[in-house]
Amino acid sequence: MARPSHRIASLLYEIDPGSQVVASGWVRTRRDSKNGFSFIELNDGSCMSNLQIVIDASVPGYEEHIKEAGTGASLEVRGELKESPGSKQRVELHASEFTLLGKADGDTYPLQKKRHSFEYLREIAHLRPRTNTFGAIARVRNCVCRTIHDFFQERGFLYVHTPIITTSDCEGAGEMFTVTTLDQTPSSAGDYSEDFFGKKASLTVSGQLEAEIYACSVGPVYTFSPTFRAENSNTTRHLSEFWMIEPEVPFFELDDNMQLAEEFIKTLVQKCLDECAEDMAFFNQRIDKEIMTTLRNILDNEFRRISYTEAVDLLLASGKKWEYPVSWGTNLQAEHERWLTEEHFGQPLIVYDYPRTIKPFYMYCNEDEKTVRAMDVLVPRVGEIIGGSQREHRLDVLEKRLVECGLDAEEYWWYLDLRRFGSVPHSGFGLGLERAILLLTGMQNIRDVIPFPRTPKNAEF
Amino acid sequence: MARPSHRIASLLYEIDPGSQVVASGWVRTRRDSKNGFSFIELNDGSCMSNLQIVIDASVPGYEEHIKEAGTGASLEVRGELKESPGSKQRVELHASEFTLLGKADGDTYPLQKKRHSFEYLREIAHLRPRTNTFGAIARVRNCVCRTIHDFFQERGFLYVHTPIITTSDCEGAGEMFTVTTLDQTPSSAGDYSEDFFGKKASLTVSGQLEAEIYACSVGPVYTFSPTFRAENSNTTRHLSEFWMIEPEVPFFELDDNMQLAEEFIKTLVQKCLDECAEDMAFFNQRIDKEIMTTLRNILDNEFRRISYTEAVDLLLASGKKWEYPVSWGTNLQAEHERWLTEEHFGQPLIVYDYPRTIKPFYMYCNEDEKTVRAMDVLVPRVGEIIGGSQREHRLDVLEKRLVECGLDAEEYWWYLDLRRFGSVPHSGFGLGLERAILLLTGMQNIRDVIPFPRTPKNAEF
Repeated sequence: MARPSHRIASLLYEIDPGSQVVASGWVRTRRDSKNGFSFIELNDGSCMSNLQIVIDASVPGYEEHIKEAGTGASLEVRGELKESPGSKQRVELHASEFTLLGKADGDTYPLQKKRHSFEYLREIAHLRPRTNTFGAIARVRNCVCRTIHDFFQERGFLYVHTPIITTSDCEGAGEMFTVTTLDQTPSSAGDYSEDFFGKKASLTVSGQLEAEIYACSVGPVYTFSPTFRAENSNTTRHLSEFWMIEPEVPFFELDDNMQLAEEFIKTLVQKCLDECAEDMAFFNQRIDKEIMTTLRNILDNEFRRISYTEAVDLLLASGKKWEYPVSWGTNLQAEHERWLTEEHFGQPLIVYDYPRTIKPFYMYCNEDEKTVRAMDVLVPRVGEIIGGSQREHRLDVLEKRLVECGLDAEEYWWYLDLRRFGSVPHSGFGLGLERAILLLTGMQNIRDVIPFPRTPKNAEF
Repeated sequence: MARPSHRIASLLYEIDPGSQVVASGWVRTRRDSKNGFSFIELNDGSCMSNLQIVIDASVPGYEEHIKEAGTGASLEVRGELKESPGSKQRVELHASEFTLLGKADGDTYPLQKKRHSFEYLREIAHLRPRTNTFGAIARVRNCVCRTIHDFFQERGFLYVHTPIITTSDCEGAGEMFTVTTLDQTPSSAGDYSEDFFGKKASLTVSGQLEAEIYACSVGPVYTFSPTFRAENSNTTRHLSEFWMIEPEVPFFELDDNMQLAEEFIKTLVQKCLDECAEDMAFFNQRIDKEIMTTLRNILDNEFRRISYTEAVDLLLASGKKWEYPVSWGTNLQAEHERWLTEEHFGQPLIVYDYPRTIKPFYMYCNEDEKTVRAMDVLVPRVGEIIGGSQREHRLDVLEKRLVECGLDAEEYWWYLDLRRFGSVPHSGFGLGLERAILLLTGMQNIRDVIPFPRTPKNAEF
C-alpha cells in the first residue's frame, strides 16, 4: 500500500522495537491515568489483539482531544514502538503525535464495551465487524475462501463462473426467486415473452449443470458463486442467499470424488488452525469449547465410508426412537445423520449409494437398478456438509431418468448433448461455504457467519 | 487427483520420455495412415496444444473402434511417452491400450474441423469451450481470477461477500432487476409487504457501500462478485450479468487509490503474459495482432494522471469534430476517452477530479466546491477500465450531498452511521472482470469472454 500506516498485526508481531511507526484504527477502550497520560487499546481488524498506545499530556492535542478518543473513535497515531513492560504484549506504541480522525459519541455509539447478544448485533450488521467475534469470523472466512481457491488451483482446476440468472432449474425441484423487469409480472404460468430475457428467469440454485459443460471440455473445474433458495425456512441452518463451491471433474468416479472431498475438508480445517490460530483460540474459548476437539477429530480420522443400505441397517438396529421413522428408501434426516457420525462412529462419515427414487435425475445409476452413485459427507456437530455424485454420462440411461423424474428432455437439450458427443465419466460435489464456517468456528447461527444474511423478510443493508 | 490419468500439459512439458502414462481427452483430429496405424490429436483443456497419439492396428480394439474415434470423441489411452521424431512437439504417446469412452457422430457433431463464427459458437455455448479460442479464454480468465485473489491477499486485504439481493441502490440510479416470489407482482410503486423479503428487492449493481462497512471495521477488503444491470443495451461492451472486483481501503486517499489501481492492472497483464504464454501467443496471432504491443505499452508506462479539467482543455484544443460536444461539466464519452488515451497520449491514463454534478453522492467533495475526488483509468483499445473515488467521509458534507442528489437520507442510515462513529478517509474502485478480459485477449465481443452471457432476450444455458 502507498500509505505509510502499518497494520497492527505487523506492529505487534513483526516490526522491531525502536522503530518509528504510524498506526491507524479504532479505539476499543481508553483508560486515563491520574498522572497525565492515557492508555488506548487500538484495533484495525488485521488481528484480534489490540495495540496498546501510551500517550501523555505532552503530546500535541492531548488536552483538547483525548476525551473524544473514546470507544469507537478513529485515530492515527505516530510514535515509537517500544518493548512493553507488561507480559500481555511484546510491544506498545508511545505516541508523539495523534490525530483524531472521527469521533464516536459515547452516549449514542451502538457498540458499548459490554457484551452484546448476537441478535442485537444482527440489527447493526454495519457495525458488528468491529467486534472481536465478527472480526474473527471475517478473517476466518477470508482464510477459508483463499484456501478454497488455492486448493483447486494447486490441483490444476480452472475457476469457472456459471450463470446466476438462469432459465433452467438444476434440481428440477428447487424453490427459486423470479428475476424480472416487468412492471407487473403475469401469474407464474403466464406469458414472460415481454420480460427482459424473453422468458421466465430465476436465480440459480446450483451451477452444477453448467460446470459439467466445462468439466467435459477443459478438465477439472470449480465454481465459487452465490446460490439462492426461496424457501420459507426460518432456521439457524438456512439462508436465502449463500455461497457454494462446486468442483466438477472429468474421468472421475465416485471413489475419486470421495477422496477429493475428504482432502478438501481436511485442508480447510488444517489451514484455519495454521493461519488463524489467534482467532481459532478465541472461538474455542468463547464460542464452543469443543471446537478444537471436533476439528482434530476430523483431521485425525480417515473418513469412514458406508453405503446408505448399511446406514439404514445400523439405524434400524440402534434401538433408538426416531422422530422420523427409518426405512430403506426414505431420506436420512438430521437426527439420523448426527447419530451416525456423532454417536455411532464418532468421526466423519461418507454415506454413498442412495436410493434412486430420492435423488435427482443426473446421478449415475448403479447396476442394482435401485441405487445411484450419490454421496453425502457427514461431520460431527454439523451433519451433512457436502453432497455430491458421479453423474450419469450414458445418454440412454439419462433420457430414461428424465422421463422417470417427469422432466422435459427438450429443456435439457444441451445437457444431453454432453452425453451425445464425447461423453466421459465425471463427478462432483457441492459445499455450502457458510455451513463450512459454522463447522470451523463453532458458531450456532448461519446468519452470523455471512456478512449480510438474507432470510425471509430480511434483506437489510 | 486420485485418478491415474495425467493432464496433457504435464505429458507435453514435464514427464520424461520412456514413462508409461495414461491420457484422457477429446479427439481434435484423426489421420489414418494406409500402413495400419493412426495419428490422433488429443486435447484435454489443460493447454492449447494437443498430444499426438500414435496407435497401430495391433492395439486391442483398433479394428473395431478406431473409425469411431473421430473429432469430438472421448478416449482414454495408455502407452509409452516417446520422444517425437517431428519438431512440432517434444513427445508423443505410443498407445498400447485405448478405450473409446464416448462417440461423437461425425455428421451431427456441431463442432466440425472448420473454423466457426463466434456468433454460431455463442449458440452452442455448451460446446464452444472445446475450441482453441474458448479453451484459451477459459484458461486466461482463470489466471486473471487467481491473480486478483493473490494480488489482494498478498497485500493483506480480506475477501468480503457483499449481498447480491439488496433493498438499497448503490448509485441511486442504476436500472435494476427485481427479485420476487410473488405469483403476481404489483406495479413497481405497489405494495411489496407480502413479498419474500417484505419489501421490494433487487439484484445488486455494486457491492461498494457494503464493502465500505468492512473497510471501516477490519481494514482493506475486496469484493469479487456477480453484478447486474437491467439496461436494454445490445452492444459488444455490455452484459446484464458480469463479475466485478471492488477493493475498498481505509486510511486511503485518491493518490493511494490511483497507485493501487495501476499496480493492479499491471499485475494482471504481467501474470497473463508470464503464465499463459501459449494462449497469449494464440490471441496475438489469431485474434488481435496488436495485443502484445498494447499490453507491453501498459507495462512499460507509468499511468499518466490528468485532471478532468485538463482533459476537457485538451479535447477542446484538439480541433477534432466530436459526435458528442465537449464542455466542462458533461461526461466524457468513449470517443473522447479513446482519443485521450490512444491518440493524444498513446498510453494508459488516469483522469481525476470530475464535476460533482455528474458523479454519485458518495464521492469526496473537493475544496473548489465544483469537483469530487473521482478517478477513471483509461487504457488504449478498451477505454475506461476502472472507475473509483475517495469516499466522502465527512458526515455533514455527505448529508448535504444526499439532499443535492435527491436521495432519502433515511434509506442510508447505516451508511451515515459509518461517518457518525469513527469515520475515516477511505477510497476504492471497481474493475469489471469481463472488460479486463477483453483488454487482455483482444477479443471484441464481451459475450465471448464470459462462459454464459446474459443479455436482453438471452439467458440460455
